[in-house]
Amino acid sequence: MSSPVRVLQYGVGPIGLACIRTILAKQETGQLVLAGAVDISPEKVGRDVAELLGGGLSPTGILVSDDAAAVLAETTPDVVLHTTTSFLDRVHGQIEECIRCGVPVVSSTEELSFSYDRHPGLSAALHKEAVKHGVAVVGTGVNPGYAMDTLALMATGVCTDVSEVHAVRVVDAGKRRKPLQLKVGAGLSAKAFEEKKATGVFGHIGLRESLFFVAKGLGWPLDRVDEQLHPVLADAEISTPFLTVASGNVAGIHHSITGYVGGNPLLSLDLKMFAGAKEPRDAVHVVGDPPVDLVVRGGIFGDTATVAVLVNAIPLVLHASPGLKTMMDLPVPRAFACSPNSG
Amino acid sequence: MSSPVRVLQYGVGPIGLACIRTILAKQETGQLVLAGAVDISPEKVGRDVAELLGGGLSPTGILVSDDAAAVLAETTPDVVLHTTTSFLDRVHGQIEECIRCGVPVVSSTEELSFSYDRHPGLSAALHKEAVKHGVAVVGTGVNPGYAMDTLALMATGVCTDVSEVHAVRVVDAGKRRKPLQLKVGAGLSAKAFEEKKATGVFGHIGLRESLFFVAKGLGWPLDRVDEQLHPVLADAEISTPFLTVASGNVAGIHHSITGYVGGNPLLSLDLKMFAGAKEPRDAVHVVGDPPVDLVVRGGIFGDTATVAVLVNAIPLVLHASPGLKTMMDLPVPRAFACSPNSG
Repeated sequence: MSSPVRVLQYGVGPIGLACIRTILAKQETGQLVLAGAVDISPEKVGRDVAELLGGGLSPTGILVSDDAAAVLAETTPDVVLHTTTSFLDRVHGQIEECIRCGVPVVSSTEELSFSYDRHPGLSAALHKEAVKHGVAVVGTGVNPGYAMDTLALMATGVCTDVSEVHAVRVVDAGKRRKPLQLKVGAGLSAKAFEEKKATGVFGHIGLRESLFFVAKGLGWPLDRVDEQLHPVLADAEISTPFLTVASGNVAGIHHSITGYVGGNPLLSLDLKMFAGAKEPRDAVHVVGDPPVDLVVRGGIFGDTATVAVLVNAIPLVLHASPGLKTMMDLPVPRAFACSPNSG
Repeated sequence: MSSPVRVLQYGVGPIGLACIRTILAKQETGQLVLAGAVDISPEKVGRDVAELLGGGLSPTGILVSDDAAAVLAETTPDVVLHTTTSFLDRVHGQIEECIRCGVPVVSSTEELSFSYDRHPGLSAALHKEAVKHGVAVVGTGVNPGYAMDTLALMATGVCTDVSEVHAVRVVDAGKRRKPLQLKVGAGLSAKAFEEKKATGVFGHIGLRESLFFVAKGLGWPLDRVDEQLHPVLADAEISTPFLTVASGNVAGIHHSITGYVGGNPLLSLDLKMFAGAKEPRDAVHVVGDPPVDLVVRGGIFGDTATVAVLVNAIPLVLHASPGLKTMMDLPVPRAFACSPNSG
């Protein structure tokens, strides 16, 4: 057996901590090992990741550092799992630093999942740098990264002809972690929702990236994109383990995007995330020959799946040719380092 | 736009002809073009593929030849679409001939979809030859190649932990083409079914390959495999457009395989193909964290999908590194050369 993949966790917020928990759990397979942890938060720096995870875990000896350059140099990781923020213009410097150290990167940065539309210049620069240093970089996660893009594209793989692709994701936000409930505005008044929406950084990040991903995968040029974000209002009081939504207030979001090809709305992604959503699911409907009606019943549970898609991308990015990749460039995602008898 | 991919169709039986029909239909996209056609059948040699397709198509100028070496040399295709038989020991010479001409191959040979278990020697030889000549080779189709293996593996991509994977495919053979109905034994007496079964080459070909594919993708060594093939008997007379099944006779097959890991039946593939099957579907059930309950409602229509998966693999194999590949080595399958406005 080859030696374990040494992973540097860059960003130890909720997703980063969940990644660390998963990596530590998988260490017994001998296929990967946590090599270091980076975060700029003063209340995390210098603390053992086990302490941050809580639950009485034994110390790992791996302390959070705010000096990425030093940790990269000292730990010489095989891969960086990067989970800081959603926006590429804020994180490209972090990613470039890893690339320049010759380390491949798997990032949860939503805008990196398909960055060529929103950030063509940054994408070209990252690609050039990655090629120069011989490493692959990918942005991924459950959404964007899997549910509404990679799975949607995969569904067309059995078609000789495709004329439309529509993806639907319905999430009962009331059953997700608190940050997700806050992210979708659960509990806000309709007025507060509109104020947040006006900031331009509210709602789900990545829908536009997923749409352009599917269009690119099919080779369809988009001539127009129509994106809509609306609140879903509670028609009765809703209680979650973390908050209460008064009747008439916001239970969550309905976020959708439509891509027009040749003047017709041929691609659409429709995302509902609100407390109390009925029939949670991920669905892909391909109008084609043959038609495809794919559904993941109950939906893909995002809190866990985000971490899974990131960790499962590690071996794929390690074996990829150098450059900025998307999930359509990498082999079919599959579970990594899952021992059937470890459960 | 780059020049169209020049495709040599090797084998013009029912699947090969369907591939040709699809290639010709896609030629208008400028992304691929039929370069030649090979078959050994005396009643096909020398005839224009348009004539074989029927339906009053204009002649293409491409005549079927039984001299593969000559056609390879004369047409210098970019890729071979190979659709002759299911069994690797019968076709490896055909595939090697293409490889030696430096031409990548997409083959419908079921045993080639994951050949390392049944044919380790032939697999190693094909891989070595493909690497030597700098081309990639893959065996694929809808099943094996997509429904019960690639899609099953893909479903685990959102899991941090996987303990079991079970795939189910239910096909109403009565709605498929005649060869499929005959292949599953529709209309046979129970006695005739058992005689056919005893030949060892009856039933669905590729279930074992799909099982080993999923096991390999998860990195799970199988310690035992249990394969079962039984007839599904009609409890009332069934009529299809092609045949009639008397009550008590065979409507089709129930073919299943189970893989044991650490003594436990953790992987299973269950395939039912019979006339009159209710609730046709493709389903993948992953016991894991999170669990995944994926279903393609109505099932993936195999007659078209087989051709689609083959044609859609063309760009993937053209860009792959040299060697014998499986679908888990290639990027996520997606529709190729589908113009949204061509329908």
